[in-house]
Amino acid sequence: MAKDMTLLWGAGSPPCWRVMIALEEKNLQGYNQKLLSFEKMEQKSQEVLNINPRGQLPAFKHGNVVVNESYGACMYLENQFKDQGNKLIPDCQTEQALMYQRMFEGQTLFQKIADVAFYNWKVPEGERHDSALKRNTEALTTEIKLWEGYLQKTPGSFLAGKSFTLADVTVYPGIAFAFRFGLCEKRYPKLAAYYNSLKERPSIKATWPPNWLENPQTQDALKNI
Amino acid sequence: MAKDMTLLWGAGSPPCWRVMIALEEKNLQGYNQKLLSFEKMEQKSQEVLNINPRGQLPAFKHGNVVVNESYGACMYLENQFKDQGNKLIPDCQTEQALMYQRMFEGQTLFQKIADVAFYNWKVPEGERHDSALKRNTEALTTEIKLWEGYLQKTPGSFLAGKSFTLADVTVYPGIAFAFRFGLCEKRYPKLAAYYNSLKERPSIKATWPPNWLENPQTQDALKNI
Repeated sequence: MAKDMTLLWGAGSPPCWRVMIALEEKNLQGYNQKLLSFEKMEQKSQEVLNINPRGQLPAFKHGNVVVNESYGACMYLENQFKDQGNKLIPDCQTEQALMYQRMFEGQTLFQKIADVAFYNWKVPEGERHDSALKRNTEALTTEIKLWEGYLQKTPGSFLAGKSFTLADVTVYPGIAFAFRFGLCEKRYPKLAAYYNSLKERPSIKATWPPNWLENPQTQDALKNI
Repeated sequence: MAKDMTLLWGAGSPPCWRVMIALEEKNLQGYNQKLLSFEKMEQKSQEVLNINPRGQLPAFKHGNVVVNESYGACMYLENQFKDQGNKLIPDCQTEQALMYQRMFEGQTLFQKIADVAFYNWKVPEGERHDSALKRNTEALTTEIKLWEGYLQKTPGSFLAGKSFTLADVTVYPGIAFAFRFGLCEKRYPKLAAYYNSLKERPSIKATWPPNWLENPQTQDALKNI
């Protein structure tokens, strides 16, 4: 039980989801948690600012220490609870190298997903250009094809090979997000197989975004990727 | 000696510099290395593509394994060579948490530096807006003030406290880059003191960008921050 931990989170946010998956994998259930609403801008509430001065979710605290950055929190949890739950950094040198490589490439992947999915939300109306959205769309298509290729070649069911690692913890939420936003399963069969096979993993099932369960209808911002 | 390692790098690139600092800290001198030219687009050469299909620098190989992502390579080196050179992940829980937090906040810092310093380079002429550059400049100013505040409060000379850690390895190059691009030392005295004090650290001195040594004149894209 993890009564000395607090997580403030928002539904459907890949950064929040990463930390929740890591907590499940390390058998750290029972932490104090509170679901906040992005719609109501609760990430800017004093409760969040007390932990995360950036006013972003997740806000995560373990005892007196704070790690709000999702990649940082996942690495911290693995490091502090090495012998508890599932081991998330493989000993095998090759798998470990691939894990680190994919984890950080995953940041580029998610950035490119966001550059398309959130274009109108991020760019003020007077600054929008069809040429920019077209370029972002092409960049994302190239990126998604790269990952489809990775999964064709990887020897195992997971991003770094035969074990579920921090690469899956950190990158899976972004991939799920892409399908939620309309990425075509038929066009990317390996990515779709990876996405679907991990849906049933206990850590992922237990933390599936509640708003996605309530409203399974996907959006279509990525349908042309 | 690290004869089984190869690093292809570009001068003045914070991602390349991170890996070079980590290699020095872990006493992994003597690796095969080659300085390539961004001006000549050598990052798109076959030599790079053979290691890094993204056509980006750094391209880093250890024996048969590849880790091109700079954060990934630094973590990989620390993990593979735990007992060699300087320990870059502190045992102390508080310092470790702060290290992970600052490492990943450092990505936001560098993104915001790049959004200003490279604005004209990244955004095609017909898509540029004064309002966007102004917003990026304001966001960077807020970010830099945040880090100045962090350094006022941190108990020690380094980003995570009393030890030089992966936070310094990964974030220092971006801070040096900001001063190189005209950030005002007088306006941010704590950041300037941190920047200047680490210039003499052997791992940083040995890897200082050669083009910065040849041409110490700074650019001024960040002078108004």
